[in-house]
Amino acid sequence: MTDAPDTATTLPAAAQRLVEAARFDGQGLIPCIAQQHDTGEVLMMAWMNREALVETLATGRVCYFSRSRSRLWRKGETSGQVQALVDLRLDCDGDTLLALVDQPGVACHTGRRNCFFHAVRGEAFTTIAEPLVDPATLYGGKAGATGA
Amino acid sequence: MTDAPDTATTLPAAAQRLVEAARFDGQGLIPCIAQQHDTGEVLMMAWMNREALVETLATGRVCYFSRSRSRLWRKGETSGQVQALVDLRLDCDGDTLLALVDQPGVACHTGRRNCFFHAVRGEAFTTIAEPLVDPATLYGGKAGATGA
Repeated sequence: MTDAPDTATTLPAAAQRLVEAARFDGQGLIPCIAQQHDTGEVLMMAWMNREALVETLATGRVCYFSRSRSRLWRKGETSGQVQALVDLRLDCDGDTLLALVDQPGVACHTGRRNCFFHAVRGEAFTTIAEPLVDPATLYGGKAGATGA
Repeated sequence: MTDAPDTATTLPAAAQRLVEAARFDGQGLIPCIAQQHDTGEVLMMAWMNREALVETLATGRVCYFSRSRSRLWRKGETSGQVQALVDLRLDCDGDTLLALVDQPGVACHTGRRNCFFHAVRGEAFTTIAEPLVDPATLYGGKAGATGA
């Protein structure tokens, strides 16, 4: 299904314990918040399955599970906007991850730095950030690009 | 079921548009990341249903939906650790919220400032933050306190 290396057996014991402590939902997924490690900017939220989590810890490059494509989504594999993992934290009850990352460029498939750009301003529900990069540049004009 | 005011009809039009744009999942829920507005600290992630989202926008005080208790969870109703809403943002595809909040005290039911305190350090999967407040103080010694 994927070209992922077989990483499950190569994780250090502490990282393996993190994987074991993570509580995946009924679909085998756990939400992961990506935050720029130095500025604190919340970039995006996406999902990981166990395989994505193991690969992220093994490679130091963030890998999600795309619910729309039902496959591993190595962030940046199409767009080039790779996320380097700086630290990975699990919350109190084990059902949410916080990834501190180094994200050069843009995190959002719309070409914006982060995904959270819809908000109320005055009397309007509006867009509060503009694209920094043309999505057509990120995805080579592919129709239906969803942020890979 | 709840003592919430009937806020649905009192939301300003722009806030109502945000509610309409939010994409709730099959259980009628949407994840909401809470971030301290000035420091950027990611405090927690919880869920809102439509009623919780409307109440949050109407009152300026963050209200979640507790999945374990199946009811609205006005953050701080038991612990006193209320979150004041500073800004609410919806992401690119409408399925995740980012709440910028002012959280005095602690966000986590364990008495820690934020919920993301499990991480790998050296050869250990360990706790990277200590409680600032005794949970027994927050919840009056109630068994099964889950962060209200």
